[in-house]
Amino acid sequence: VSSPDIIQAVRWSDDGRGVRIVDQRALPDRYAERDLRSADAVCDAIATLAVRGAPAIGIAGAMGLVVAAGEAGGRSRPEFDAALAALAARIRRTRPTAVNLSWAIDRLLAAAAAVVGAPAVVLDAMRAEADAILEEDRAMCRRIGECGLPLVHDGARVLTHCNAGALATGGMGTALAPVYLAAREGRRVSVWADETRPLLQGSRLTAWELARAGIPVTVLADNMAASLMRAGEVDLVLVGADRIAANGDVANKIGTYGLAVLARHHGIPFYVAAPSSTFDPATPDGDAIAIEQRDPDEVRNAFGRRTAPADVPAHNPAFDVTPAALVTAIVSDRALHHPPYDFGRRPRGEGRRPNP
Amino acid sequence: VSSPDIIQAVRWSDDGRGVRIVDQRALPDRYAERDLRSADAVCDAIATLAVRGAPAIGIAGAMGLVVAAGEAGGRSRPEFDAALAALAARIRRTRPTAVNLSWAIDRLLAAAAAVVGAPAVVLDAMRAEADAILEEDRAMCRRIGECGLPLVHDGARVLTHCNAGALATGGMGTALAPVYLAAREGRRVSVWADETRPLLQGSRLTAWELARAGIPVTVLADNMAASLMRAGEVDLVLVGADRIAANGDVANKIGTYGLAVLARHHGIPFYVAAPSSTFDPATPDGDAIAIEQRDPDEVRNAFGRRTAPADVPAHNPAFDVTPAALVTAIVSDRALHHPPYDFGRRPRGEGRRPNP
Repeated sequence: VSSPDIIQAVRWSDDGRGVRIVDQRALPDRYAERDLRSADAVCDAIATLAVRGAPAIGIAGAMGLVVAAGEAGGRSRPEFDAALAALAARIRRTRPTAVNLSWAIDRLLAAAAAVVGAPAVVLDAMRAEADAILEEDRAMCRRIGECGLPLVHDGARVLTHCNAGALATGGMGTALAPVYLAAREGRRVSVWADETRPLLQGSRLTAWELARAGIPVTVLADNMAASLMRAGEVDLVLVGADRIAANGDVANKIGTYGLAVLARHHGIPFYVAAPSSTFDPATPDGDAIAIEQRDPDEVRNAFGRRTAPADVPAHNPAFDVTPAALVTAIVSDRALHHPPYDFGRRPRGEGRRPNP
Repeated sequence: VSSPDIIQAVRWSDDGRGVRIVDQRALPDRYAERDLRSADAVCDAIATLAVRGAPAIGIAGAMGLVVAAGEAGGRSRPEFDAALAALAARIRRTRPTAVNLSWAIDRLLAAAAAVVGAPAVVLDAMRAEADAILEEDRAMCRRIGECGLPLVHDGARVLTHCNAGALATGGMGTALAPVYLAAREGRRVSVWADETRPLLQGSRLTAWELARAGIPVTVLADNMAASLMRAGEVDLVLVGADRIAANGDVANKIGTYGLAVLARHHGIPFYVAAPSSTFDPATPDGDAIAIEQRDPDEVRNAFGRRTAPADVPAHNPAFDVTPAALVTAIVSDRALHHPPYDFGRRPRGEGRRPNP
């Protein structure tokens, strides 16, 4: 078994003057990298989901702000500061609900404000801060992989949902990190990837990145997971999380809750893997989490082809909530957390980094 | 509340010389009726799924054989008999695993063989037999509706899967029959329609026929049913069946089993509605039912657009098996059957009419 070749979703261009992304709009039809070399290109890529996944969006936004601000590098410091503020606001607006994006932009603005001197010096500080965000994310993913590694035994058949992989982060992903590390350790591991309607991140992205890394993966329609479990074909379920309440209730991509119920019925362990920044001490339980309702046309269409009558209502919640009682353990970058969960207090000195 | 306008999926053309079908390939984009006036047209419609659903295929095949044989009506009886045998074999081959199609063709051949005289007389007997098959199917659907009517209370919110409606039968459907009758009785009833990947019969067909009939229907992706149940938005689950084993285990469209587990977890009744011809006394339990594995490209594609990498394997079972223990009751055209189920013996004088 060779070490898995894990895709790097966001990095600097070879000449350091652009942000190189894997264009996720083109997948799975074709693999395309794009260099974002202007504010326009950065904003377009984020707005059109060429880059997606909370951590990856934050990283691309931070690196993109460095690239965009570089265009004003020859101006006076006051002019540069004004341009930077405008660019930051503009990038932030591309995904207004992406808390990670705002968080990353804020970090770069703070780094810039802390520097006295010419724009070139400010740009160096911003680039260092963007590098730090990327490296912190890579380290976070690796630590999730290490904390979750004991869950993925040799021969494990893992069922996952949506994409919580390398394509969503700067590193090896969250839910997929223990899978990649297990493969790197030489364990034989295979993955069942739910296609994850309506936007099909599982079949389009998870299947693609795992196959590229040489990890056996099989796609299934979401409604096929139950009979696979009954047939004894699933050893564990491993999914990501968008937010984890203080009591351990988990908000994640729609369909996650159903998998948790099915796993419990079949005696299969159900694990959630997510950065500790996903823990939300201010949210006591899942009932306090508002569920975003998305455009019904995402359900009434697939790839622009109509799948349901246009005048029939469609239900399209983005997330569901899995009660903590159905979660066997939660893997974070800090630990493998077992119930009863208590994420009600932040560790000292650590700010919350929300993952919308 | 006006009486629901239930679609008639298969009937004679106005001039009686063709088979008029609702072309289900065009739905939900547009409504198109087609008159099948030759053996070519009949075979093409069945092979390309313009007409689908076990009962509807049988009816269309029987009526289509009358139309096709009519072309040989001017020949001698021996020549007519030879042409009839060839046409019957040809129509049968269009869906070789559709047991209902073979069963209906056999009934017409037997009716023809029982008649002495010129082809015109034989054709009359065949037409009468095709009429009988259609009328028996319509009566069967209505009886299922009557047997299941007590399950659909005023205000009921019914979750269904796939299409077991009027579009699949000659009458008002199987699983949807109690819904239509409840609406006809003036009860307020609404339906949640699983889209039913991979072929989307729920969003394409169930949503269309219910909306046309004036019954409130909302489409959802299959993975959204669990959170709906948790939110208390589902009063009962009502699905069809492809085969029911002697012990009550139910084979039906992939995804049915998961719904049964979810319904049990949430304390929601789970009902199966199907013709008694679906009971298979020769099959002791679900383990004895072979599950057809279909083309993985149905999962890797949606409407011809790729949804997963072409070289990644996909899992695509057509059916799953729901153990009888999860089935609250089974609605047939004979009765509302409660557990423990015992369909191991046929009622006297009744042949089995399998529904593949």
